[in-house]
Amino acid sequence: MGKTDTKESIIKNGARLVHSKGYNNTGLSDILNAAGVPKGSFYFYFKSKDDFGLSLLDYYWEFIQGMINRYCSDISMTPLQRLENFMDGYQNLFSKMGFNGGCPIGNLMQEMSDLNEDFRAKVGDIYSQMKKRIEQLLEEAHEKGDIPDFSDIDSMAQFILNSWEGSIMHMKLAKSDEPLKLFKHVVFKQLLKKL
Amino acid sequence: MGKTDTKESIIKNGARLVHSKGYNNTGLSDILNAAGVPKGSFYFYFKSKDDFGLSLLDYYWEFIQGMINRYCSDISMTPLQRLENFMDGYQNLFSKMGFNGGCPIGNLMQEMSDLNEDFRAKVGDIYSQMKKRIEQLLEEAHEKGDIPDFSDIDSMAQFILNSWEGSIMHMKLAKSDEPLKLFKHVVFKQLLKKL
Repeated sequence: MGKTDTKESIIKNGARLVHSKGYNNTGLSDILNAAGVPKGSFYFYFKSKDDFGLSLLDYYWEFIQGMINRYCSDISMTPLQRLENFMDGYQNLFSKMGFNGGCPIGNLMQEMSDLNEDFRAKVGDIYSQMKKRIEQLLEEAHEKGDIPDFSDIDSMAQFILNSWEGSIMHMKLAKSDEPLKLFKHVVFKQLLKKL
Repeated sequence: MGKTDTKESIIKNGARLVHSKGYNNTGLSDILNAAGVPKGSFYFYFKSKDDFGLSLLDYYWEFIQGMINRYCSDISMTPLQRLENFMDGYQNLFSKMGFNGGCPIGNLMQEMSDLNEDFRAKVGDIYSQMKKRIEQLLEEAHEKGDIPDFSDIDSMAQFILNSWEGSIMHMKLAKSDEPLKLFKHVVFKQLLKKL
């Protein structure tokens, strides 16, 4: 493998393992075995396991941005349709994964916020950007008159994101897409519905 | 220490450590050191670490039930006031803990649902009971005419619980009670508000 391939293989295999087992529960040796690279190679690319963990966050966030671009960019659809399509896209993905894994950002938020300030800062930055994207869609919907007059669109976007994360957590427990369907029903048919 | 004291000390210390560090990230030796008991004593009370972990769930659930009884039993208050008091009670508790730890049931739901079916079943059972308690309060509120006519109170209770868990997760990240305040605002002033 070339240098770029090796680093990519470590990150891809690490991302998969951490997503399914948790960060602290995934040993460096698990990752090296899965990637098929010797320990020395790891330290050529990463200063430490935490340095690698922070790179994983970039990898996960890049994937999420891909989903956002795929589902939220088509301006021939209404902003709310785009938001719902994005959530449907994730629902399909989760379903294909047997409802295992859940949201890698939510997982690391839960696991690392009390343990490592670098993780907390980086997860916080990504979470803000996720919220910002929902906020932009709600603002567009508001300008078009598609949603009620909320005094604070920023807060509503944050509530929706937090509820979405909680629903994904319940999905992991229930091994079913019912919590996501329920989330969409309450958010789109009640909370954002114009009276 | 007597036998009961020893078992209680292992569980209390274990509960504190797992709440702050995570289950897989807490070693048996950490727990034994904190409880000040030799390894042999541990295996006198528990068959394995997982057997101990399942006992922790009973311990956490007992604590939550205490909070429910404390805040949700006073029928001189409206059902919605009782639900809000319960959430205020937790907000105070979380604030005193520096917004660390979060919900121990939510944490184990996130961490263990993909890894251990016994944990998943037990967390699922506790989570159902938490939902049931919210559902009972909403049903009471509905009978009194205090909330809108939802077609499905059971689902609304589930959505509220999932959103609450997601908000606690964000609280852990933000180290602030803003996500909980936002949750209460949207749930009590918008979602459950009678028009």
